[in-house]
Amino acid sequence: MSAQPTAGRYPGFAFDVLARDSGSRARLGRLETPHGALMTPAFIFCATKAAIKAASPRDLREVNADIILANTYHLMIQPGAGTVERMGGLHRFTGWSGPMLTDSGGFQIFSLGQGGASDEIKNSRHDKRTPLLTKLTEEGATFRSPRDGAYHTLTPETSIAIQRQLGADLIVVLDECTPFHVDRDYTARSLAMTHRWADRCLAEFERGQDGRQALYGVIQGGIYEDLRREGAEFAASRPFFGHAVGGCLGDHKDQLYDIVGYAMEPRSDARPVHLLGIGGIRDIWEGVALGIDTFDCVTPTRIARHGWALQRQADGHRINLRNARFAEDRDPLDPECACPACRDFSRGYVHHLLKAGEILGIQLLTVHNMAFMTRLMATIRGALSTGRFAAAKRAWLS
Amino acid sequence: MSAQPTAGRYPGFAFDVLARDSGSRARLGRLETPHGALMTPAFIFCATKAAIKAASPRDLREVNADIILANTYHLMIQPGAGTVERMGGLHRFTGWSGPMLTDSGGFQIFSLGQGGASDEIKNSRHDKRTPLLTKLTEEGATFRSPRDGAYHTLTPETSIAIQRQLGADLIVVLDECTPFHVDRDYTARSLAMTHRWADRCLAEFERGQDGRQALYGVIQGGIYEDLRREGAEFAASRPFFGHAVGGCLGDHKDQLYDIVGYAMEPRSDARPVHLLGIGGIRDIWEGVALGIDTFDCVTPTRIARHGWALQRQADGHRINLRNARFAEDRDPLDPECACPACRDFSRGYVHHLLKAGEILGIQLLTVHNMAFMTRLMATIRGALSTGRFAAAKRAWLS
Repeated sequence: MSAQPTAGRYPGFAFDVLARDSGSRARLGRLETPHGALMTPAFIFCATKAAIKAASPRDLREVNADIILANTYHLMIQPGAGTVERMGGLHRFTGWSGPMLTDSGGFQIFSLGQGGASDEIKNSRHDKRTPLLTKLTEEGATFRSPRDGAYHTLTPETSIAIQRQLGADLIVVLDECTPFHVDRDYTARSLAMTHRWADRCLAEFERGQDGRQALYGVIQGGIYEDLRREGAEFAASRPFFGHAVGGCLGDHKDQLYDIVGYAMEPRSDARPVHLLGIGGIRDIWEGVALGIDTFDCVTPTRIARHGWALQRQADGHRINLRNARFAEDRDPLDPECACPACRDFSRGYVHHLLKAGEILGIQLLTVHNMAFMTRLMATIRGALSTGRFAAAKRAWLS
Repeated sequence: MSAQPTAGRYPGFAFDVLARDSGSRARLGRLETPHGALMTPAFIFCATKAAIKAASPRDLREVNADIILANTYHLMIQPGAGTVERMGGLHRFTGWSGPMLTDSGGFQIFSLGQGGASDEIKNSRHDKRTPLLTKLTEEGATFRSPRDGAYHTLTPETSIAIQRQLGADLIVVLDECTPFHVDRDYTARSLAMTHRWADRCLAEFERGQDGRQALYGVIQGGIYEDLRREGAEFAASRPFFGHAVGGCLGDHKDQLYDIVGYAMEPRSDARPVHLLGIGGIRDIWEGVALGIDTFDCVTPTRIARHGWALQRQADGHRINLRNARFAEDRDPLDPECACPACRDFSRGYVHHLLKAGEILGIQLLTVHNMAFMTRLMATIRGALSTGRFAAAKRAWLS
């Protein structure tokens, strides 16, 4: 099927497919924004609260990061969208002058209120600072801030208005993010509301459209094949610049790939597709094979703070530098890497920094893990441009 | 008085006085080590556990830092001097290729065992990880590690041997660091032992001398003028490369300056003099006026971790970025500064980072505070080289 044309609607933006894999839906693309262009598939680093944890914009540039995202929920709570706007918007505020995305805020407010969707979806422990959803209606969602107990309401209109104040290049419609345990009926009703919300988001987006931002629709539908297809068809029928696959993505890897596959089936080749919150190494290779263009995930920077360095050869593609076997290891974190951390420091030194509680250890692992991810994406793009995607995928995952 | 000549004893090292202030003992100097030369007066940044907290060697180079120190006590506990040696020594281990100093380890082990000397001297709260001194004899000091309860003995010989394993350019003799509350008799007996220890350190230093390191003597004597003079005369009578003024430096600023003055009275112009653990801004100007060549202090980097930015115009030369008045302040941390933090970020952004608990806030404040200190020292050196030291000191402290 072909998507509703968006020509002229997003003047500072473009997405072009430059090469396609013959054996899968993988594709090499180029995504242009008012803050620069990037090649896809690409990884979007999470600057949740308008900062990459333990890294600066210069670190990002040094490891060839293309694009970052910030979370609308976190920023509306602290420092507030008005402050970010008065400080000149996210690019000026953070010092990151490249492409940037914000999400809608929905994921965070639905992650606790509906019984721990975040836990289910991300398989992580509860964050004590998760908001409490107090009311969900057709109008929107009301929640209490874990910061000061204040009530906030997020509606399709306010989500878009806040994202306009934040000023990222790519913004996302508000959706209800359903947890894993809900049944098909709930999911179907939720999907219908998510679609009505999407139309309200589009209307609000168009009211304030000034060419600086492009809007992504979200494909929901839980674990149900027909609902995911319905979600994808709906998205394609509306003039979104891109699509994001969100919500519950199953309880094991194969189900994740199936669900993403359902969402990609009625695809609109003219649009970039983002997979929300998924960024494991195998997930990225499989996601690319299914046609995903961009990924985001906190994992590379989060595991750095727990002592892990990403490494191609290691079990699970990671080693933990807290392990005593690294105490006198003079090798770099990753022998294949030329990032500033691998260039200047040894595993033994990073081991010492972690044992001694030195922040520098986290800084070095964060930089390395970001460099690893950009190198992985460059490897994928290189394979796509030379017609060797399937072989490269096999080699990496074997 | 003139000090015992050291010609030929420290082949890779030199100290030359290039200019003198006409109204004080302040002087412009050049200190050469096997890892490079630096102009003095200079500030030595504290890489206590072989890392500047929240900063990398590259950050140090970017803010024109000249020299750093690491603490023997911390490194003998973790990762152990043997590990540092097998990893190629501190320069290789840390990636800092410039001049470096280690202390003797004495300050930390005496700071709790004798009733909180550290608290008195540094006016700081107890660190729960302070070691417990269990035995002090002519031979040396035995203490329990706060890390694992293991007993360690530090003697003049082991302190030098450990510092040799660590491999800094400038190393320091082991001394007993007496707390403020001890009387003149105790201080006099302690001073005599400190001098016997100094001779044992010299003997051990000469046994292993390979030209890579230069030894500093320590001038003790508590708050007593005659004992400080005795300490200074003793140091000058021995072939140390430099002197360090240590121990109890009084309970208020004027007493500090008096005591430093006593220690500087029988000065040896041929040698650089370091003031241990003192680095307040007024202290530096007054110390330079008394003839001090180098300073070290954790304050610039420690207060960064509590949200403070050093700034010339501010009350107490610092502002706290946690203050709500900075929430939407678009100015840089310090309008006089061109460091990477001041160049790229606003006070409002740093305020947000601190409120949000982002490590990047600490990183930016640390870089700025280091840049501030190197700029202060450059200002002092510039004033000395143009004969305007007194005027510059008045202008800064008014």
